[in-house]
Amino acid sequence: MTGPGSAAGTVPSDRAGCLALDAADPLAGLRETFHLPDGVIYLDGNSLGPLPRATAARLAEVIGGEWGQGLVGSWNTAGWIEAPHRVGDKIARLIGAGPGEVVVADSTSVNLYKAVWAAVQWQRAGDPRRDLVLCDRTSFPTDRYLLASACASLGVELRAVAVEDVEHLLDDRVAVLALNHVDYRNGRLHDLPVLTRAAHEAGALAIWDLAHSAGVLPIGLAEAGADIAVGCGYKYLNGGPGAPSFVWAHPRLVDRLDQPLQGWLGHRAPFDFAPEYLAAQGISRFQCGTPPILSLAALECGVDSVLAAEPLGGLAAIRAKSLALTGLFSGLVAGPVARHGLVSITPDAAPERGGQVALRAGGDLDPYAIVQALIARGVVGDFRAPDVLRFGFAPLYLRHVDVWDAVQVLGEVLDTGRWRRHRRAHRSVVT
Amino acid sequence: MTGPGSAAGTVPSDRAGCLALDAADPLAGLRETFHLPDGVIYLDGNSLGPLPRATAARLAEVIGGEWGQGLVGSWNTAGWIEAPHRVGDKIARLIGAGPGEVVVADSTSVNLYKAVWAAVQWQRAGDPRRDLVLCDRTSFPTDRYLLASACASLGVELRAVAVEDVEHLLDDRVAVLALNHVDYRNGRLHDLPVLTRAAHEAGALAIWDLAHSAGVLPIGLAEAGADIAVGCGYKYLNGGPGAPSFVWAHPRLVDRLDQPLQGWLGHRAPFDFAPEYLAAQGISRFQCGTPPILSLAALECGVDSVLAAEPLGGLAAIRAKSLALTGLFSGLVAGPVARHGLVSITPDAAPERGGQVALRAGGDLDPYAIVQALIARGVVGDFRAPDVLRFGFAPLYLRHVDVWDAVQVLGEVLDTGRWRRHRRAHRSVVT
Repeated sequence: MTGPGSAAGTVPSDRAGCLALDAADPLAGLRETFHLPDGVIYLDGNSLGPLPRATAARLAEVIGGEWGQGLVGSWNTAGWIEAPHRVGDKIARLIGAGPGEVVVADSTSVNLYKAVWAAVQWQRAGDPRRDLVLCDRTSFPTDRYLLASACASLGVELRAVAVEDVEHLLDDRVAVLALNHVDYRNGRLHDLPVLTRAAHEAGALAIWDLAHSAGVLPIGLAEAGADIAVGCGYKYLNGGPGAPSFVWAHPRLVDRLDQPLQGWLGHRAPFDFAPEYLAAQGISRFQCGTPPILSLAALECGVDSVLAAEPLGGLAAIRAKSLALTGLFSGLVAGPVARHGLVSITPDAAPERGGQVALRAGGDLDPYAIVQALIARGVVGDFRAPDVLRFGFAPLYLRHVDVWDAVQVLGEVLDTGRWRRHRRAHRSVVT
Repeated sequence: MTGPGSAAGTVPSDRAGCLALDAADPLAGLRETFHLPDGVIYLDGNSLGPLPRATAARLAEVIGGEWGQGLVGSWNTAGWIEAPHRVGDKIARLIGAGPGEVVVADSTSVNLYKAVWAAVQWQRAGDPRRDLVLCDRTSFPTDRYLLASACASLGVELRAVAVEDVEHLLDDRVAVLALNHVDYRNGRLHDLPVLTRAAHEAGALAIWDLAHSAGVLPIGLAEAGADIAVGCGYKYLNGGPGAPSFVWAHPRLVDRLDQPLQGWLGHRAPFDFAPEYLAAQGISRFQCGTPPILSLAALECGVDSVLAAEPLGGLAAIRAKSLALTGLFSGLVAGPVARHGLVSITPDAAPERGGQVALRAGGDLDPYAIVQALIARGVVGDFRAPDVLRFGFAPLYLRHVDVWDAVQVLGEVLDTGRWRRHRRAHRSVVT
């Protein structure tokens, strides 16, 4: 649990101090590029990013112009067929990868399946005794389900472990280490370079799920020498609900990866309609079916909304502001949290924090009801079963003063006990 | 090759006769529900259906209202989380399935992988000697690639055979028969009830790819007792480029199918975030990751564009008009086709025809250049390597007079030899 000032240097002691920080914020102008409903402080961009203003007009053009007027010819003339690579190249700039190394395809879940399947197969071709995959036991469930299913189909073991034990557990049985870069629940940022190196020292491949890090902090995949990464388009990339996912594989490895979902767009010559599959060179082999162009166009607008920070300091500036916002929240919330017996489960140390802060509500507190009470007052965070309140701080559109105001509302909801009126069975279904 | 009148009763001998047929067409009014560019006769709805007029406004509402204003709460309040089932229920009405039996998810390619994998596993649990999957050797390539990959991962054999040999080849080694309902290239409609029955008599399961039949003819999956079906959202369902796919499994079978892409939305209780996967009851288990809401909303508009025919006779009326249009085209085109040495490869008999007519161009004809010459004159069909011209006749927006006019243009392009100006290396990338 953080105390005032412990996580982000100086924490302002009043609202005016927050306004002053906003006045000095190099990214402040980007807020205007988003549609944000009046009266809402949106602390759930780690689940679904808000709407970039450019998206509606772009989609209207894709629908009315490219599809409506251009019809099937737009696969060529409007660049639809290239869109998975074009958007992938933009995402590459946000994750420390090179041009041509990232492709947009399918969902994060499906891409993770492809990735682990291909990686395990490759490893076992070299050493059949590598029959173990390690994953983080606090992983977002879909990752764990898919890893389990892939491992079952490959006849290898999946072991879900604490990330702090990983270095100790890596040995010559481990084929793949598959980790979430940021824990979806407590917001812990895992050390990608160190854990990648540890995996390599044990002869394992490192697969990273960037769902909660892409777009909110520098990742440096190539520099860290990671092997494969998958990520989500609808969180910090603001690509819209259920936006397609992306996948990257290191150039030294990609052409050795035979992913199992061998669809026509992963073929070396899709329009030859050849009877036999021949995997494309490079990351294109991770494509499968026809890409969902409308959702992809929205994703491109979302990625552009992050790239708009490049002239303003880019991901370094985004990361600095992200840490300032999470630090500010942790500092300001410490009082109400202590008074009511909540506990922060997000690491205090900046290098260990992603873009969110999570509070655990025990005792007679009902975290679901607290989140609903906040939403009713215009502060949108989310609840994660069984007992966690999550607050995401996306630096592109949030202000320091939003953090101040959100904490005032949270303090009031807790102090007055008004959250009790929001007890209910209905579940939030945000991701 | 059809002669005049052979395929669809009387073929009008002039343009006025076609106009008269249009005047009597019960579906004629539906044409106004689509955006069709001026000067274009669109004979490629079997590759990408055109834009329903309702789609742009609906997407603007989803983007600006549901996402922009409703933000993450729209997963509940705007019914996003239910959308794969809501749209699935609508599709069910078009394929002869019941409510709750169809779900929208992923791409056709990915769904086919899930389907064959689950079906083979189930079969082998009952009889490990069933180690063979049969598919049609003229299958759309992506189907064959995915079947091959799934079979390889399961250690069973895939054999690509001529559909006319299937009944002869079905024996107690066959686990699964996986066929395209309509051949993407020559437009042949396979006999789903008869081939399903033959599969069952041999103890095999029947999986159908409805990409080229859903929305253009009655299918009757449940009545035929088929086992699993997958289909495409962007052809006759008019769901937009790369629209998500759908999947159906017979209720007697679905809960025995453990598909391998076990993502959180296929879980029995996705929002419990349980560490272990427990497949949902029913078709929901074929979901995997978070659904692409924008593309799904467009698909719903597309499906609605077909359901709009229900009060006008529904799929029976659609099928009757489809056969009239393909028959009319075959009759009218017979002259130019014979003069220039093209050959129709689409079956003459109505029960064996899907919604398209395909011509093979041999000799010194360049089918790619012919298609380009037609497109330059506003008649949009497509080319399929190495030598096929395809013309799709979607009954919701095409008129008999369009068929007449298209044939005049084709005749002129062939008779004048002007197609020779359109020779080029660039490939069409339509699907």
